[in-house]
Amino acid sequence: MMRTKLLSLVPRATVACRHMSSATKLTTVEVNDKTGIATLTMNRPPVNGLNLELLRDLQQSIEEIEGNKSCGLILTSSNPTIFSAGLDILEMYKPDKERIRAFWTQLQDVWLALYGSSVPTAAAINGHSPAGGCLLAASCEYRVMLPKFTIGLNETQLGIVAPQWFMSTYLSILPRREAERSLNQGRMFTTEEALRVGLVDEIASSKEEALAKCADFIATFAKVNPLARSLTKQQFRSADLQQLENERVQDLEKFLFFINQPAVQKGLGIYLESLKKKSKN
Amino acid sequence: MMRTKLLSLVPRATVACRHMSSATKLTTVEVNDKTGIATLTMNRPPVNGLNLELLRDLQQSIEEIEGNKSCGLILTSSNPTIFSAGLDILEMYKPDKERIRAFWTQLQDVWLALYGSSVPTAAAINGHSPAGGCLLAASCEYRVMLPKFTIGLNETQLGIVAPQWFMSTYLSILPRREAERSLNQGRMFTTEEALRVGLVDEIASSKEEALAKCADFIATFAKVNPLARSLTKQQFRSADLQQLENERVQDLEKFLFFINQPAVQKGLGIYLESLKKKSKN
Amino acid sequence: MMRTKLLSLVPRATVACRHMSSATKLTTVEVNDKTGIATLTMNRPPVNGLNLELLRDLQQSIEEIEGNKSCGLILTSSNPTIFSAGLDILEMYKPDKERIRAFWTQLQDVWLALYGSSVPTAAAINGHSPAGGCLLAASCEYRVMLPKFTIGLNETQLGIVAPQWFMSTYLSILPRREAERSLNQGRMFTTEEALRVGLVDEIASSKEEALAKCADFIATFAKVNPLARSLTKQQFRSADLQQLENERVQDLEKFLFFINQPAVQKGLGIYLESLKKKSKN
Repeated sequence: MMRTKLLSLVPRATVACRHMSSATKLTTVEVNDKTGIATLTMNRPPVNGLNLELLRDLQQSIEEIEGNKSCGLILTSSNPTIFSAGLDILEMYKPDKERIRAFWTQLQDVWLALYGSSVPTAAAINGHSPAGGCLLAASCEYRVMLPKFTIGLNETQLGIVAPQWFMSTYLSILPRREAERSLNQGRMFTTEEALRVGLVDEIASSKEEALAKCADFIATFAKVNPLARSLTKQQFRSADLQQLENERVQDLEKFLFFINQPAVQKGLGIYLESLKKKSKN
Repeated sequence: MMRTKLLSLVPRATVACRHMSSATKLTTVEVNDKTGIATLTMNRPPVNGLNLELLRDLQQSIEEIEGNKSCGLILTSSNPTIFSAGLDILEMYKPDKERIRAFWTQLQDVWLALYGSSVPTAAAINGHSPAGGCLLAASCEYRVMLPKFTIGLNETQLGIVAPQWFMSTYLSILPRREAERSLNQGRMFTTEEALRVGLVDEIASSKEEALAKCADFIATFAKVNPLARSLTKQQFRSADLQQLENERVQDLEKFLFFINQPAVQKGLGIYLESLKKKSKN
Repeated sequence: MMRTKLLSLVPRATVACRHMSSATKLTTVEVNDKTGIATLTMNRPPVNGLNLELLRDLQQSIEEIEGNKSCGLILTSSNPTIFSAGLDILEMYKPDKERIRAFWTQLQDVWLALYGSSVPTAAAINGHSPAGGCLLAASCEYRVMLPKFTIGLNETQLGIVAPQWFMSTYLSILPRREAERSLNQGRMFTTEEALRVGLVDEIASSKEEALAKCADFIATFAKVNPLARSLTKQQFRSADLQQLENERVQDLEKFLFFINQPAVQKGLGIYLESLKKKSKN
């Protein structure tokens, strides 16, 4: 029998929304006047490969949206067929010792900021979304996807192991049996399969419709006290967030150990050669 | 290849059932002669608001049912449209320092007794069941609900945060994605929505039918050894129960800190005024 | 954007497969030339009762398959109507003090080996599969079952408590609500019910078809790096495995305490008598 008057304890969500300009070159932030929702667009041609700079811009944009007490965050891509192709391979091939540490640490920070965001988050998945791209989408609270694309944590297909926090992110969305099986398989889901299993929540026929459906989801919080909401979300996610906070150094060292294996470096080199040849044709 | 003869280790469930009289004024306990099932009815007009006295009577009734080794417990309401409206706001407005401590501690005790009950439990949800009402229903092992009512942990809509044990109770029933999303939204489900998501298990067209369906569920344990059953249930629920046992003082202090915020008290006052005006019309 | 060339880090799954002969009398291991998949058949008449010797043979076979880096393991039965009837009651009636310790310890070891196996595992459930039989099937990653049989952890129906690791195994497959309820009930699922709830993944109309469907599941890992796969699987299962590793002595003592209760021994004796009479008719 507690009621809405308690809302006066903290400012209403609909009050605090403001316009924000683009944060940087590799991401843009646009705030809708009417809804107060911020759209965060990844814009690093050709495939939104997650390199150090894009990750930095992502984090700054998330923090900007967070700091301005936006009504919500919608993550999307400026590329018409790729949401994000995942981690940029050039960050990992013959890496500079300092830069690669900064790179992985930055990826950890982006996840901590997005998965732990206090504002409602949704992803308008307007293109393919493998590996790191799927991680970003899955860290949001809601997903709308366009048809004929694919999404999934396909790390094992690439010969690598998705760290614990990738697994936790999957488990926050998928049933345990499905999460384990598809992570073991490195399975890429079609849009329709992703809907069926719960990896995405809705299908939209255009980017505009996807953004609108994300906005509809965020609007379900219109009458919800933002502080109560964010503390409730935190209660669900704090164990996962805390685990990475506690183990982030070991997590970094594990990644560095793996990536510096001669066999891995050799594989990356061969793969990069094949990409160069492709681009010449 | 172990078999039913092992049942001789502990008394059969169907043996120990007895008649019980009403425990107190605010709850009644009726035991069915044939089935040995105890029906625990909340009876505090006008809306089964959970105040200290109703909570005390609830706990006494649960303990009585437990102590008499009943075959099962069905929780229901004497009100034809409200199962329970949740916590009584008068307990929280300008509260007496001692009484409000007793009130919250009693709520903790009721949850520990019901969620941790050794007998099979079911809720015949014959009316609306928001917040604390939903908590009681969700703490049972089975739920049958009448059409055209609503149920849900809508705390965020009321500007408050459902504590950890409310979350655990939701997670014992709902998929993680659904539990987090609906708790963040403070979502009230219609009967049909609640069935679809698994928050209730069956729909019944009348209170009698709901009670009968609850009895059918309890009857699935007819051939089950009661001690083995209760230890098995405990294995699933002990982590949740232990968590509140360990943190009940902090949980109480958190509640008191929140409820004593001037803004919260002001909100409660305005809301109570509006209720008085309503009742005069 | 990491890619398949990283696979060069570890040997491909399809390379390492070899033929293996039967490991022992009570289990056989056959490796398919083309697929490299090992079929592990339980063969202890009359009902694949899990006694110390069958459990020992099971573990040796699992380790043999593991050591030979097979592409996968399919568990099945030589009996046309029983997958496994569960633990052998003769191991528990008037037990030899040393042997019963070895028996339970061996069951723990089989579970640790099968649930924690690094190769893909599937069960072709070609007959009834109660209690310990269900545990073995549920410890695999995939289950295909023939129609008109039953499966389930029905321990409470037998008057006993399935230990923590049985519960963890159920929770790795079933939604929490379903796992708790059916373990409390000691529910035996028909093939169709098991499919609906997710306890099995597919139905096959013959043992051959079941084996083929299991092989199809294992083939989904054909392009997956085996080391990355096994580390990913471990990440999901290590908490459950670690828990039994840490508590295996207490788990053994709990079992011994229970089984040595006079009432339990008496029940076992009466049950064995009834079996003898049956077999004379």
